[in-house]
Amino acid sequence: MAAHYSIGIDYGTNSVRALIVDVATGREVGTKVCPYPSGTDGIFTDPKDHNVARQSPADWLFGLEKSVKGALALARRARGFRPELVIGIGVDTTGSTPLPVDANLKPLAFYPEFKRNRNALAWLWKDHSGADEAAAITAAARASRPHYLAKCGGTYSSEWFFSKIWHCLRADPKVFKAAHTWVEFADWIPAVLAGITNPADLKPGVCPAGHKAMYNDSWGGLPDKEFLGSLDPELGALRDRLYPKAYPADVVAGYLCEEWAAKLGLPKGLPIAVGAFDAHLGAVGSGVREGVLSKIIGTSTCDIMVAPRDAGIPDIPGVCGIVDGSVIPGCLGIEAGQSAVGDIFNWFVRVVCQGKGKLHEELTARARKLRPGQSGLLALDWNNGNRTILVDPRLTGLLMGQTLHTTREEIYRALIEATAYGARAIVDRIAEYGVAIDSIVCCGGIAEKNPMLMQIYADVLGRPMMISRSAQTCALGAAVFGAVVAGSAAGGHDSTGAAQKAMCGVKRTVYKPIEANRAVYDKLYGLYRKLHDSFGVAGHTEDLSAAMKELLKIKEGAA
Amino acid sequence: MAAHYSIGIDYGTNSVRALIVDVATGREVGTKVCPYPSGTDGIFTDPKDHNVARQSPADWLFGLEKSVKGALALARRARGFRPELVIGIGVDTTGSTPLPVDANLKPLAFYPEFKRNRNALAWLWKDHSGADEAAAITAAARASRPHYLAKCGGTYSSEWFFSKIWHCLRADPKVFKAAHTWVEFADWIPAVLAGITNPADLKPGVCPAGHKAMYNDSWGGLPDKEFLGSLDPELGALRDRLYPKAYPADVVAGYLCEEWAAKLGLPKGLPIAVGAFDAHLGAVGSGVREGVLSKIIGTSTCDIMVAPRDAGIPDIPGVCGIVDGSVIPGCLGIEAGQSAVGDIFNWFVRVVCQGKGKLHEELTARARKLRPGQSGLLALDWNNGNRTILVDPRLTGLLMGQTLHTTREEIYRALIEATAYGARAIVDRIAEYGVAIDSIVCCGGIAEKNPMLMQIYADVLGRPMMISRSAQTCALGAAVFGAVVAGSAAGGHDSTGAAQKAMCGVKRTVYKPIEANRAVYDKLYGLYRKLHDSFGVAGHTEDLSAAMKELLKIKEGAA
Repeated sequence: MAAHYSIGIDYGTNSVRALIVDVATGREVGTKVCPYPSGTDGIFTDPKDHNVARQSPADWLFGLEKSVKGALALARRARGFRPELVIGIGVDTTGSTPLPVDANLKPLAFYPEFKRNRNALAWLWKDHSGADEAAAITAAARASRPHYLAKCGGTYSSEWFFSKIWHCLRADPKVFKAAHTWVEFADWIPAVLAGITNPADLKPGVCPAGHKAMYNDSWGGLPDKEFLGSLDPELGALRDRLYPKAYPADVVAGYLCEEWAAKLGLPKGLPIAVGAFDAHLGAVGSGVREGVLSKIIGTSTCDIMVAPRDAGIPDIPGVCGIVDGSVIPGCLGIEAGQSAVGDIFNWFVRVVCQGKGKLHEELTARARKLRPGQSGLLALDWNNGNRTILVDPRLTGLLMGQTLHTTREEIYRALIEATAYGARAIVDRIAEYGVAIDSIVCCGGIAEKNPMLMQIYADVLGRPMMISRSAQTCALGAAVFGAVVAGSAAGGHDSTGAAQKAMCGVKRTVYKPIEANRAVYDKLYGLYRKLHDSFGVAGHTEDLSAAMKELLKIKEGAA
Repeated sequence: MAAHYSIGIDYGTNSVRALIVDVATGREVGTKVCPYPSGTDGIFTDPKDHNVARQSPADWLFGLEKSVKGALALARRARGFRPELVIGIGVDTTGSTPLPVDANLKPLAFYPEFKRNRNALAWLWKDHSGADEAAAITAAARASRPHYLAKCGGTYSSEWFFSKIWHCLRADPKVFKAAHTWVEFADWIPAVLAGITNPADLKPGVCPAGHKAMYNDSWGGLPDKEFLGSLDPELGALRDRLYPKAYPADVVAGYLCEEWAAKLGLPKGLPIAVGAFDAHLGAVGSGVREGVLSKIIGTSTCDIMVAPRDAGIPDIPGVCGIVDGSVIPGCLGIEAGQSAVGDIFNWFVRVVCQGKGKLHEELTARARKLRPGQSGLLALDWNNGNRTILVDPRLTGLLMGQTLHTTREEIYRALIEATAYGARAIVDRIAEYGVAIDSIVCCGGIAEKNPMLMQIYADVLGRPMMISRSAQTCALGAAVFGAVVAGSAAGGHDSTGAAQKAMCGVKRTVYKPIEANRAVYDKLYGLYRKLHDSFGVAGHTEDLSAAMKELLKIKEGAA
């Protein structure tokens, strides 16, 4: 019997990847990455405003064709592969990355009059222009719709759907007026592949909707018109042009249209899964399940867990979102994350040390020889704000304990440790609210390349750390849903769990907590939490006068 | 009439300088620096213990001959100069730098059996080995002799005389036992020049005695035998072999002996002034007087003020010392200082950035373009502890406000600003206790080379900042006392004030506070003090949760 294949298309911050996977074994027969050709690494920034980060939908389409055709070309070399054996397509993207479009779902950016307007591009997840709007949405919801916030950690973020759209309305009303509606990146790509041009035919993902747009079936979908209208009547009016219902990724968003079938060299009519976010499908690809937290460690991190619908999980303060079906259909998906992880290490290496990429390896090699606590340093991992559990973009980095002898590698290690403490704050908070975490599966280049970081995380978190078998878990997670929308009748799978079991796994190396290290890191984490709460929690007061001395004592104990 | 000349000999941390000055005009006719030949830049460290910093008395003698002969060789080229026209010698050194010696004032380090023993060397001012002993001395004095501490800021430092000697007694009793007594660097050099070998003939300086050894005429000189004996009976016994009385620098310590007169090529019998510390004589050389604070900015800083004896100046908590006659005879000398200033900038440039010296200039050029507050950063200047006003060596550095966009020059400027805030904390504290500071005269290479730093200090301190005319104020201050011990009859001066008036002055450039900058720095200083008190003052609690946001607001206001 011939094998069957699914294609996962994974849109990251700087590039898009296509992956072709055998749905019975998880064997990856072809993969191709295409960097976005425009902007700086695919991002349009504003030298005058660090908050701005935009992306071109033209880059997405360019990358779609390049990556899928490239992956197919490689797959053709694999024994037994033929494009006709592809049975489905799944898509994940960054988000919330809303795109202003016309009534035919055509991006405003494709119109000549908006060609040079950054506001007509897609508003990339890490765009923070809407900070004021986020604060106003939070305030309004707290006053009149507290349940809206309860599912997204208690604070609406500047990175999310309505903050961005409202900011566009205020900052560039011409773009807002010209847009018929706004579509999430993750919803737009499946629509393009399926040739959908009528907004009413869109099948939006519950993952973007629930995590970033306050969507919930229990209150009738998106925030109500009155609430949005109270922010601005134009937002209220937009509500009617947004979607009434959102779907998990095991639902078919549409079928591959003739135009794209021809472009890509794939059979017309292939089922395309409803889109979801990269982190959520990365979790699926790394085998997330009850008790196993999936952590994608990249420039930032995303932590994804699932819990049974009927487990009675309460709202968890400071956790980005709890959304039914956003990860595994039928389960609650829980999302948390850190605003910067690899970005902090990169900042230190590239900006402070003005080193090249290989300095990461040099510093790691030297930092690996340090014992826990030996640096005498303690850092807060807030150089890009704090996403979980404080949900506050207006927090900044902090480093303490430096002397005249503090070395580069000690700082480097302290920054890694800071991100581990940030990770522990998340796991502790979630566990406190009844979601048990027994182990952690990581994916992302840093997890694969840096055993020191993995051991520090195991020691700080007190749990075994594993690494996803696939190096491209997001694309694999998308391919899982390509196999699920195809169904067993077409050679795919009938459930996400069955598809994960067949297609996903972890590597043999497991990083287990070392007891002696844990004891030191428990003390350091105690100090981290003192700083964390002092600088991050309004009204919190603490006697910090012993903190530097305690760090010195730990340092002397380690030496 | 032929001019007359005085020689100032200034022993720094890494080198010794001799300076030959016309006592009527301050004209400098010859100067020579001799780096200490041993150790690392003249310092013997212990790779296993960052607290250790020792120095070889052989280096001091080598440097004495080299520097004086070198200065004389240069002076011979000046019109009218002849060695016979030299009328006196003054000496300053680092301190507290106690040296273990035998009953003939010969250093133990000169004995073969102690040649390789670091503990038999001089214990350099920045040696912190005696931290435990300092804490025990502080505790004992608090309990039974609170008046001892009242004159030295309330805390006895690990950098001071008895902490070091007691630590030697505990850590290396063989050295302690072999030593007949311990002599301060500043007292030993005049004794060497005068050929004094009997400890009873020593004329110890009141500057080292009063500032570092709890000496005060009002309680009979050094701490009493019972008190020292309560620390350790051996320390009590040592008390009898230390000096009964100490003297200001306008007193003759002795007269140039035949041996050294021949070695140096100077007339035998020249009067040699009682020794004092470099910072105190630097203040004299920069023209310190009532209302004018002298600030020596080097690896660390020393702030020196004087006040009339009868001004009723109370004890000032956290200020290193108030000693009658330690700066200008007949006046109270007040000493404060910061444990690290240039050292912090050097640490950042050399260790963190791994740059060479010229990176200081590059970073300064870029940092100069930043407006106050624009970096969004705030640092504590405690990488080497805090000398004034917290008197706590077990404090460490802190940097906050960093984002993913924070640049090297922003950090560099923040570190400079941190030292300015530390300087302001000192001036505010002293002013609060009735010692008015109208302006500040700086000396040291950093003050001369870095106009940005001077402007930042003027803006932060809200006072005009001047620079001493001489580039070698410590040696000049020593030469002032060479002229005073010679007296007017020999062509010198009869008072320190008269000698200063003739020999010292300031440069034309004055850095005046810029009002707009002051307003921003007042806000930043407010935040600095919140951190300063939170991390530095036991029992202090503060709500710091707005601190990062306030910094961001100031940053946005500056942009």
